[in-house]
Amino acid sequence: MKLIGYVDNGTRHIGAVDGSHVIPLGEVSAFYADPRTATASADQVTKRLVRAELVEAPPVPQTARVFCVGINYHAHGDESREHSGLDTPKVPMIFGRWADTLVVDGDPVPVPPNEDGLDWEVELAVIIADRVWAADRATASQHVLGYTAFNDLSARKKQLETAQFTLGKNADRSGPIGPVVVTPDEIGDPNSLTLRTRVGDSVMQLGNTRDLIHDIPSIIAYITDTVSLKPGDVIATGTPAGVGLGMKPQVYLTAGDAVEVEVENIGVLRTPIVSRADLAARHEL
Amino acid sequence: MKLIGYVDNGTRHIGAVDGSHVIPLGEVSAFYADPRTATASADQVTKRLVRAELVEAPPVPQTARVFCVGINYHAHGDESREHSGLDTPKVPMIFGRWADTLVVDGDPVPVPPNEDGLDWEVELAVIIADRVWAADRATASQHVLGYTAFNDLSARKKQLETAQFTLGKNADRSGPIGPVVVTPDEIGDPNSLTLRTRVGDSVMQLGNTRDLIHDIPSIIAYITDTVSLKPGDVIATGTPAGVGLGMKPQVYLTAGDAVEVEVENIGVLRTPIVSRADLAARHEL
Repeated sequence: MKLIGYVDNGTRHIGAVDGSHVIPLGEVSAFYADPRTATASADQVTKRLVRAELVEAPPVPQTARVFCVGINYHAHGDESREHSGLDTPKVPMIFGRWADTLVVDGDPVPVPPNEDGLDWEVELAVIIADRVWAADRATASQHVLGYTAFNDLSARKKQLETAQFTLGKNADRSGPIGPVVVTPDEIGDPNSLTLRTRVGDSVMQLGNTRDLIHDIPSIIAYITDTVSLKPGDVIATGTPAGVGLGMKPQVYLTAGDAVEVEVENIGVLRTPIVSRADLAARHEL
Repeated sequence: MKLIGYVDNGTRHIGAVDGSHVIPLGEVSAFYADPRTATASADQVTKRLVRAELVEAPPVPQTARVFCVGINYHAHGDESREHSGLDTPKVPMIFGRWADTLVVDGDPVPVPPNEDGLDWEVELAVIIADRVWAADRATASQHVLGYTAFNDLSARKKQLETAQFTLGKNADRSGPIGPVVVTPDEIGDPNSLTLRTRVGDSVMQLGNTRDLIHDIPSIIAYITDTVSLKPGDVIATGTPAGVGLGMKPQVYLTAGDAVEVEVENIGVLRTPIVSRADLAARHEL
């Protein structure tokens, strides 16, 4: 099953993609109160919405937390060390995003005016199905509702100005997620998915989740000895090598660019980059 | 005016304290849609609730973001440098909390089982009134709805295990806030407020906001060239010297302790520390 979020009458809802249609699975907070029952009930829903007519929205509650893993591929650690000053962490290095930053396929993302541009980071992300505390690595995967693509768009100047990444990872609208959430029965092997970033005709990143330093069960176990996960929380598992920060000279996304991140068996997530002024003029900020 | 949050019929509301009573100011999302009008209308509200009968809740939306400033007093930088490895930052060093961690006066907070205990951090916090982008330092204070006390309870092992503080600053229920939000007309000079932490009969921290390295307008300006603030967002301005991490030997809060943080003109915020198992047995987790 492939899930999306959409807005209906001012409220965020979750639906299952059925070709060019969407099966409504309920308002987002009701859906995440029991996501397994909600998805299992899809075949009893007769109503169909036309996907192209929907205003899509992030497929998680507005109270979801986004746990991001920094430096979770060795080659990305190598390319960013000169700038971050950080060795590859021995345990998952987690920084946070607020759900306000999440946007969907096609949504324009503005460059903060004091940055040279935004940097791309293709990532496999997982959505959590349950309340999870003290997960065991052996069974942690059972708590995954589904898999999606994430572009951890980064304001590098702000990110690296202090030791904490938070502001540079929470620029307005800087978290494209989607285009769908694929449930575990359809994802194949999550430890063997190709990741790719394209800017125009150029492939900037090409990686595979088999090279993750800390795999998904390890990350869930590491988080949940301190912080309970809850349904709808997102874990972005980190990016492979090929970010603009690591290039000489550095290359960043600026207004007029479009960036696509792709995760195998999930799809392509496209993001037009715009100036802050242009977006504000369209009354979207 | 002194504001609190409380739960009514399953929904979070905001009210103004009137002696032992509370003037209801509306459901939290409606209140924060226009907090100035909501507070200005208090004298037209005739209904009064008995404060002691209310179930209090954090005075912000569940979608609020908590921006915390790390190392914002020189003496705290000095005492923590040996453990954090960090020099005092030249600009505000921001890490994030999710609003899930917020609890109120009297709420018990559990020690994560893998920690030696929790560390205290008294802080002055501000609640934001408006949507704020690119604030000017000279006028940034106008965006403050009110001031409150915050105890940035820290799981030091997790906080310092990697370069990113996020998990150690987001342990379940680890963000006591309150006991009230004091509006600017009643706070006095926010740059001259005494801060104090007591554990039992011992005063652990005694500081004053005049020693803030980065003051509130500077922090607001620094955040909002990248991240828009929105009504209900919280900025915790950092803690003075005297945390348990910096003591030799280190001292941490463990089950059975009670910690009080106090900010002048705001009040005392008291937190009983419990074991995870005890709290779970009371069905609060």
